[in-house]
Amino acid sequence: MRFQGKKLTVQVFGQSHGEAIGAVIDGLPAGVRVDQERLNALMRRRAPGQGAHTTARREPDIPEFVSGLADGISCGAPVTVLIRNRDARSGDYASLRDIPRPSHADWPAFVKYGPAHDGRGGGVFSGRLTAPLCAAGAIALQMLADRQVFVGAHIAEIAGIPDDPFDPVGLKPEDLAAPGQKSFPVCSDGAGAEMLSAIEDARRDGDSVGGVVECASLGLPVGLGGPLFEGLESALASALFAIPAVRGVSFGKGFEAARMRGSAHNDPLLVADGRIVTSTNRAGGLQGGMTNGMPLLVNVAFKPTPSIALPQRSVSLSRMQPAELIISGRHDPCVVPRAVPVVESMVALVLLDQLL
Amino acid sequence: MRFQGKKLTVQVFGQSHGEAIGAVIDGLPAGVRVDQERLNALMRRRAPGQGAHTTARREPDIPEFVSGLADGISCGAPVTVLIRNRDARSGDYASLRDIPRPSHADWPAFVKYGPAHDGRGGGVFSGRLTAPLCAAGAIALQMLADRQVFVGAHIAEIAGIPDDPFDPVGLKPEDLAAPGQKSFPVCSDGAGAEMLSAIEDARRDGDSVGGVVECASLGLPVGLGGPLFEGLESALASALFAIPAVRGVSFGKGFEAARMRGSAHNDPLLVADGRIVTSTNRAGGLQGGMTNGMPLLVNVAFKPTPSIALPQRSVSLSRMQPAELIISGRHDPCVVPRAVPVVESMVALVLLDQLL
Amino acid sequence: MRFQGKKLTVQVFGQSHGEAIGAVIDGLPAGVRVDQERLNALMRRRAPGQGAHTTARREPDIPEFVSGLADGISCGAPVTVLIRNRDARSGDYASLRDIPRPSHADWPAFVKYGPAHDGRGGGVFSGRLTAPLCAAGAIALQMLADRQVFVGAHIAEIAGIPDDPFDPVGLKPEDLAAPGQKSFPVCSDGAGAEMLSAIEDARRDGDSVGGVVECASLGLPVGLGGPLFEGLESALASALFAIPAVRGVSFGKGFEAARMRGSAHNDPLLVADGRIVTSTNRAGGLQGGMTNGMPLLVNVAFKPTPSIALPQRSVSLSRMQPAELIISGRHDPCVVPRAVPVVESMVALVLLDQLL
Amino acid sequence: MRFQGKKLTVQVFGQSHGEAIGAVIDGLPAGVRVDQERLNALMRRRAPGQGAHTTARREPDIPEFVSGLADGISCGAPVTVLIRNRDARSGDYASLRDIPRPSHADWPAFVKYGPAHDGRGGGVFSGRLTAPLCAAGAIALQMLADRQVFVGAHIAEIAGIPDDPFDPVGLKPEDLAAPGQKSFPVCSDGAGAEMLSAIEDARRDGDSVGGVVECASLGLPVGLGGPLFEGLESALASALFAIPAVRGVSFGKGFEAARMRGSAHNDPLLVADGRIVTSTNRAGGLQGGMTNGMPLLVNVAFKPTPSIALPQRSVSLSRMQPAELIISGRHDPCVVPRAVPVVESMVALVLLDQLL
Repeated sequence: MRFQGKKLTVQVFGQSHGEAIGAVIDGLPAGVRVDQERLNALMRRRAPGQGAHTTARREPDIPEFVSGLADGISCGAPVTVLIRNRDARSGDYASLRDIPRPSHADWPAFVKYGPAHDGRGGGVFSGRLTAPLCAAGAIALQMLADRQVFVGAHIAEIAGIPDDPFDPVGLKPEDLAAPGQKSFPVCSDGAGAEMLSAIEDARRDGDSVGGVVECASLGLPVGLGGPLFEGLESALASALFAIPAVRGVSFGKGFEAARMRGSAHNDPLLVADGRIVTSTNRAGGLQGGMTNGMPLLVNVAFKPTPSIALPQRSVSLSRMQPAELIISGRHDPCVVPRAVPVVESMVALVLLDQLL
Repeated sequence: MRFQGKKLTVQVFGQSHGEAIGAVIDGLPAGVRVDQERLNALMRRRAPGQGAHTTARREPDIPEFVSGLADGISCGAPVTVLIRNRDARSGDYASLRDIPRPSHADWPAFVKYGPAHDGRGGGVFSGRLTAPLCAAGAIALQMLADRQVFVGAHIAEIAGIPDDPFDPVGLKPEDLAAPGQKSFPVCSDGAGAEMLSAIEDARRDGDSVGGVVECASLGLPVGLGGPLFEGLESALASALFAIPAVRGVSFGKGFEAARMRGSAHNDPLLVADGRIVTSTNRAGGLQGGMTNGMPLLVNVAFKPTPSIALPQRSVSLSRMQPAELIISGRHDPCVVPRAVPVVESMVALVLLDQLL
Repeated sequence: MRFQGKKLTVQVFGQSHGEAIGAVIDGLPAGVRVDQERLNALMRRRAPGQGAHTTARREPDIPEFVSGLADGISCGAPVTVLIRNRDARSGDYASLRDIPRPSHADWPAFVKYGPAHDGRGGGVFSGRLTAPLCAAGAIALQMLADRQVFVGAHIAEIAGIPDDPFDPVGLKPEDLAAPGQKSFPVCSDGAGAEMLSAIEDARRDGDSVGGVVECASLGLPVGLGGPLFEGLESALASALFAIPAVRGVSFGKGFEAARMRGSAHNDPLLVADGRIVTSTNRAGGLQGGMTNGMPLLVNVAFKPTPSIALPQRSVSLSRMQPAELIISGRHDPCVVPRAVPVVESMVALVLLDQLL
Repeated sequence: MRFQGKKLTVQVFGQSHGEAIGAVIDGLPAGVRVDQERLNALMRRRAPGQGAHTTARREPDIPEFVSGLADGISCGAPVTVLIRNRDARSGDYASLRDIPRPSHADWPAFVKYGPAHDGRGGGVFSGRLTAPLCAAGAIALQMLADRQVFVGAHIAEIAGIPDDPFDPVGLKPEDLAAPGQKSFPVCSDGAGAEMLSAIEDARRDGDSVGGVVECASLGLPVGLGGPLFEGLESALASALFAIPAVRGVSFGKGFEAARMRGSAHNDPLLVADGRIVTSTNRAGGLQGGMTNGMPLLVNVAFKPTPSIALPQRSVSLSRMQPAELIISGRHDPCVVPRAVPVVESMVALVLLDQLL
């Protein structure tokens, strides 16, 4: 349960309803000042209870740094973030031990770990485990920014409603940062309002919706990544698919590229301001597994939250009989808004690791 | 340039126009008989020069096993496959050193490696490097079949023309194997004929087309994979994005899931023949990063071949001036048919590694 | 700062005088009951303040498990041990920032990490970091014992005074366990008394002494390890040299083997009780990098504690001038007795990892 | 069977009597010119058949580079060295399948791999597998020399006869290189003559002798390595114990340090020529797991060759009965002289990896 980069590792630990969750970040250089305000700001974007569209569970999620920092500056030792679990109502999940929730980890986890599995609140499979990853990601984002590399994401689509995409060629740092400063991280607020309305509809119906997050990075040098298994796409996809509920990852034109002809998909090279760039950016900044200096563009598809209020068909494991399941806990009708800083964090960890 | 599994590693080596390419497979158990006929059959499916739709370059691609086998049986030592390069016309690529091909690795590789880079034929970024991976994959496929685990793939789409998809619930081993036994690996031969015609159109226009490969696996136990970075999606995506020209990877309903509601996407659980299964399979056999016993389903999007005969706009690196590029080598107008066994190989390597 | 096994990883974190130290143990199977009494017992053997021969610093070192256990049983999630630092007198070390202690990490750490290094109490280089490794080791020892594999160690030598060695051929589990049950872990109490006296002499002189720990393991299956870099010696030595102050590691006859002839060093094979064994065990249970079923025997040499009360010659980094150094903190005149459970823990982690 | 550094990996392959042995070196930068003469010179020092003290088996051991070099310069792709096996007389080893050689890998390898094991000539456990490691080491030595880092070794002891040690404080590059330029790599030719005579005595008696190799490195920067498992001792010992027949590894004063007092073992710091150095070097250049800028000193103990001409007691695996064994193949009465360049290669690979 570890992000294993070339230099950087992030060992995550914890279960949703255990004592604490956290992460040990190993491989950071000494001398990095951690801006706790910015770190807390990123974590708040992921935290539940921020708006009408999220779960009512409230976790202060105040990260405690128990190692690796001295006077707020990294000292070379591994940096450990600890987040105590407080507001966990395990009772909500009692019946789930016998009746696995459809499209959740419950059933395969039961087979994998046996009765010792701590499945309360999803246990180790809970989206809650992404909180320490955001703490690690926040540090990575700061260190990237110090290197003039910027990462930002927005909701590209919810319930089929598209946001305006990032400009693949002319994207500027301020456009990249803009969605993250809003309570609902989109480029077009009109699209955002429609999405919020679709989420509210789903909630009213006891249902849920999915969506897509688009993430971009600016300022990367040419040549990060490499051939075959060293390709940057492999590293990024591996980290992004670690986020619960992700069903697809694509770069540049992605699946649309499969329907294009080469003459329409290729990005012509040209010289601009003494640098070699491409006039279009269907590649999403990646050629041959390597950065080409253009904005890096990745899309991440999230399925609709599997926890819905509607009755569902499942089975009783003890009786091996059909059973109707009513999930009574508090759940997001859509995880996509809260997933935006998680996507940013994952991309930032991979890119920082490549740059170290 | 190494597939790094939990137990299994495949170290690939070689450049397109160097002395030899190959792979060292470390971590195979002793006592596995390698069926050379089946191995050669898989490699022929990937080899160029098989039909009108592929490049005219002909490589016998006869793999020589220089270590790890004694009397055709693995002895516990690493298995090394060596493939000599024979039919390489380096002259075709001479001008490319100065004028990078659009949407190829040329430009970032030049920056990354400097003038020492052996870019002939794409060098280490050539699709040719997937040949030894198919040799490794063929061994993995045999070992999986011994464990009653089956992997197969077909062309799901070329130039927007869809093949019939695999049956996500009722897929049988013989249906899985069927496309691979055809010269053009599709489920529906009618769709295949249309695709071939679209490829031929592109060739005639000096252009190229992309497509999608769908791969499935049957017979997997429940609980392979794990939480966060141990998820099977991460391992599979990392390996699949290592294939040149891949732009997207998705599982189950993939990007379509982002537009569904939870009630429509969740897979109800039920008991059938004393086993717990799901009545639908939108998850593609993966819940919480783990197999759930249903057919595993993954889609892989390939961009159109960037090497096209049409003139393209590029730059002269020496003069830092615009330059028109005419690529005169022999190239596939569509790599998708030859990519099918490569996708199978990658999936097989990941699954075998999880099972060892 | 991570023990990286094939299946098991132990990510250590913390600085001697930071908030907390600890470890995240990833890769343990679910369902293992952790015997906290035995764990605490092992940690007490390592803890300071146990006798006249150790430092006066007292750390309760009560490990808190903040993840991975539910009702004292491993649930499959990473197991995290947290130990708060309490009794740290940082003032003792204030002058050390400018005047590095001879034969300590101070000087190279200053160069490596720069002024951000948290060198209080040795920081991340402190022997205190072995406490969480003992917690991990205690779990490993329990799991090995469940598999009928036993690990034990004793002080083989202090200040040149030898203990009786373990019987290389006929060693029994009770003999292996005996030293660990004593307050001073030796086989021969007479030798132990002499060692204690030598330690006391050194303390009185403001000096320190070194020694050797011998560790053995019984019950290992034949064939653990492998060729070249997979050899068990490599894995064991890598873990053992991670213990601060270790200067040498040897197996079986070790450096003495270099002076023997083959006819005197080779271990003849014979059949006993239907099993193949060797009549002598100069190999220390390891042939060709693999276990051969005989008792595994390893010796670990520790240098004398570099922190001594005598005045020492050093330099002032700020003035680049000679400086006399008086170390006023509390220090062990001999770390060897407390190192015994650390050696056991390291060996246990490596062996468990091989067996998982 | 892979040297796994932080950046550099060397995947070794082959069996003693298979088609070929070799190595794939991944992670070398592009643009390194490989000096084939120096590489061949190093390999000749390891090759058998060089003098009266070595086995009569003659292998030309001409390394063929089949990938990674273009015009003798590394191109960024993995560098593959292939060495064909030629002069293997498998017949010599036929009886060994049933009667394992004492203190060889035969018996545990039989258990580990079963009947499929290719044990001819020691198979994958043969010292012959160190030949490709010397090819890799030769490249590492060249790259280190380009960085003004030098590695050299000599026979410190054979059959109890000591060579003059390297000067731990004042060692100069020319003294370091001197032994490697002799046919018998010692500092003192008088000691060398005695050693050769002891080897010849052992041969005449059908017996064998062991010894110690001392290796040093000059020019290393301060601060390589790190805390706990990142210590340079761990990395070096792990690589050195991978060499067949190694029984002990120690740094600086090694096991002797265990008998010293702190006041006698500590290395006083002083300022010389504006640099901080130590006036003695009992630490062997390593404090706290890190280089301190002084000469790095490591000792490696080799057991006597287990293959001796004298009759030995073993067992017949098929009959589970005692059996006398006469080994009739050609064997070194002492592997230590040929091990010297192997030790240099291992140390060079580890150091280069740390420096990359």
